[in-house]
Amino acid sequence: MSKIKEAPISEKIVDSARGVHDKIIKSQKPTMSAPVRSLSNVKYHQEKGYFEMKGKSKLRTLTVSTVKSFAQTLKMMALSKELIDENNMATKREAYYISKNWGKAGFAEQPESDTIMDDIEAMFMVNREQLRFAPEEKGGAVAGRLIVLDKDLDGSELKIDCTKFGSGAYSIPVDVEGLGFKSKAKFILAIETAGAFQRLLKCGFWDTSNCILISMGGVPTRACRRFIRRLADELKIPVYAFVDGDPYGYFNIYRTLKVGSGNAAHINRFFCVPQASFLGVTPQDIIDYELPTHPLKEVDIKRAKDALKNDPFVKYHKPWQAAINQMLKMGVRVEQQAFAKHSLSFVANTYLPEKINNSKKFLP
Amino acid sequence: MSKIKEAPISEKIVDSARGVHDKIIKSQKPTMSAPVRSLSNVKYHQEKGYFEMKGKSKLRTLTVSTVKSFAQTLKMMALSKELIDENNMATKREAYYISKNWGKAGFAEQPESDTIMDDIEAMFMVNREQLRFAPEEKGGAVAGRLIVLDKDLDGSELKIDCTKFGSGAYSIPVDVEGLGFKSKAKFILAIETAGAFQRLLKCGFWDTSNCILISMGGVPTRACRRFIRRLADELKIPVYAFVDGDPYGYFNIYRTLKVGSGNAAHINRFFCVPQASFLGVTPQDIIDYELPTHPLKEVDIKRAKDALKNDPFVKYHKPWQAAINQMLKMGVRVEQQAFAKHSLSFVANTYLPEKINNSKKFLP
Repeated sequence: MSKIKEAPISEKIVDSARGVHDKIIKSQKPTMSAPVRSLSNVKYHQEKGYFEMKGKSKLRTLTVSTVKSFAQTLKMMALSKELIDENNMATKREAYYISKNWGKAGFAEQPESDTIMDDIEAMFMVNREQLRFAPEEKGGAVAGRLIVLDKDLDGSELKIDCTKFGSGAYSIPVDVEGLGFKSKAKFILAIETAGAFQRLLKCGFWDTSNCILISMGGVPTRACRRFIRRLADELKIPVYAFVDGDPYGYFNIYRTLKVGSGNAAHINRFFCVPQASFLGVTPQDIIDYELPTHPLKEVDIKRAKDALKNDPFVKYHKPWQAAINQMLKMGVRVEQQAFAKHSLSFVANTYLPEKINNSKKFLP
Repeated sequence: MSKIKEAPISEKIVDSARGVHDKIIKSQKPTMSAPVRSLSNVKYHQEKGYFEMKGKSKLRTLTVSTVKSFAQTLKMMALSKELIDENNMATKREAYYISKNWGKAGFAEQPESDTIMDDIEAMFMVNREQLRFAPEEKGGAVAGRLIVLDKDLDGSELKIDCTKFGSGAYSIPVDVEGLGFKSKAKFILAIETAGAFQRLLKCGFWDTSNCILISMGGVPTRACRRFIRRLADELKIPVYAFVDGDPYGYFNIYRTLKVGSGNAAHINRFFCVPQASFLGVTPQDIIDYELPTHPLKEVDIKRAKDALKNDPFVKYHKPWQAAINQMLKMGVRVEQQAFAKHSLSFVANTYLPEKINNSKKFLP
């Protein structure tokens, strides 16, 4: 099990707070240090598989002008330790409201408390969920050959069988660290739209292909990315991404899923899914499967050119550069439901099996 | 069971197509008629519980200028009948791509096919899901004292026990017409945010209060509204809405859930939830529970004043007018997670039980 052990974080918080306390006792100025969070401080490691920080740090020293944010950071660390000790969690918004009891250290607006939370994440190089702060957003839906292990309200073990949801699905919780998995599936298919997910469910695709279907519902939430990552790690199976064939699908969805994003690089190592590869829809699929298309919009062209020029992931992978140039030359984008032109079951019975059996046509 | 019977729709489609065919054989101009879809053609019935059409219709006659949309309407009706006969469904986007095989009757853009679909809904006074066209969006998440009855891939019955999902939940499918329900729950709690839903899950609220929790995730999708409506009809239990205390929560979320919206009045009778009442957060709750607030934004004030002036639902219900005026006077809005100020479990252990035991403080 690659689950994150929680005891050390609680200890790290105590150590850090003790450091501050000791300096104050000695009448010295206490400090806290956190890595700089920006694109200029990341690099792309193909082997590690994610955007990683280069190591620049910023030091925060307690002064008259930093006293409030210094106090807020310590209070937020104390709240995190309390939640860990109680085996509880708080959403980001709840944490903001709890601060209303902190007197002058209370936050005026939620973006302020979110920023302090990000600082603490970076300080301890952990993710917010390990600090027991959960996002507000839903996590995505799952169906197929997977049993999720969770706990009941009274602590007894629950086995949630994702083959038993009919036309519905298992909804991923906001915090997935406590879950366990059992599965003999051959792969995970991560799907952009709820509509395409429902189609594959209706066709029984997970049954015929022995796989796990995950509906990301657009750009995957942190909980959804972490869920897929933990699945891929523990089951040791590949992840195939099936998204729209446009720059949004390629970069905002797939690239974020696989290697993470620039502005949250300190947590990419937990949320990236290096096991992911790009099944489709590729520009070449448009030709091979005679798919109906739409012209590229201005924003698509701009996003594609930006990626060629600035995205460390694209700059590393020649096949991606070729695919983007092909798309720009063709001047069109394609949606993952375009296969319905041939028939409603074409995607499940023809396209996906053909691609899965010929993985050299995947993009990295 | 108040489930919609499907045979009559298939017959209605055949009857309507036969009408067109007969007129053509007789060398007459065929026509199709559909109600006008706009706010000017709706009224509010408190007893019926939803916005209803007044009865204005528009007649479409086959002429040189309407020949394309006329053909598209007939092709779309044929597709619907085919899906019904095959016990299949198509998403709105898939239906658009299927039209790529219709030669000159193919749609250039999806909004065109969506409009024709809306026309057919209105013509037959059914909802899109009964025509077997499903939306792309997800349906919301469910936990608590409910067993959902669905079918396996091989047609055998599945019992999906929503008490057995731990920190996760049951994800509502895009089409809920085929589902059955078993439950002895006392009420349904429809919750705006995934964060508040997760909190109540963590506190075991459905267990202590014997209820069904539904996370709407913002404005409820059609599938989510229809799911709640069918639950409330079949279980004969009330629905309590628990949303943010601001005009968006009051009108965009609660009002849409309870009585539907103006521009989709022809389907409100299927999607409204007249059994719903408003538990909170009310402006009075801010005072009673000493909640932290935020100032109203310009858009909040505008939306509230518009509702007082133009919303038939608000104009009917004096307690809503009083609540909106109280909010405007106080000049503040409140979020449903503001109770975290008192403690993380306050909402589950104090606020919700107090309100549920004193339903005269609900708004209609």
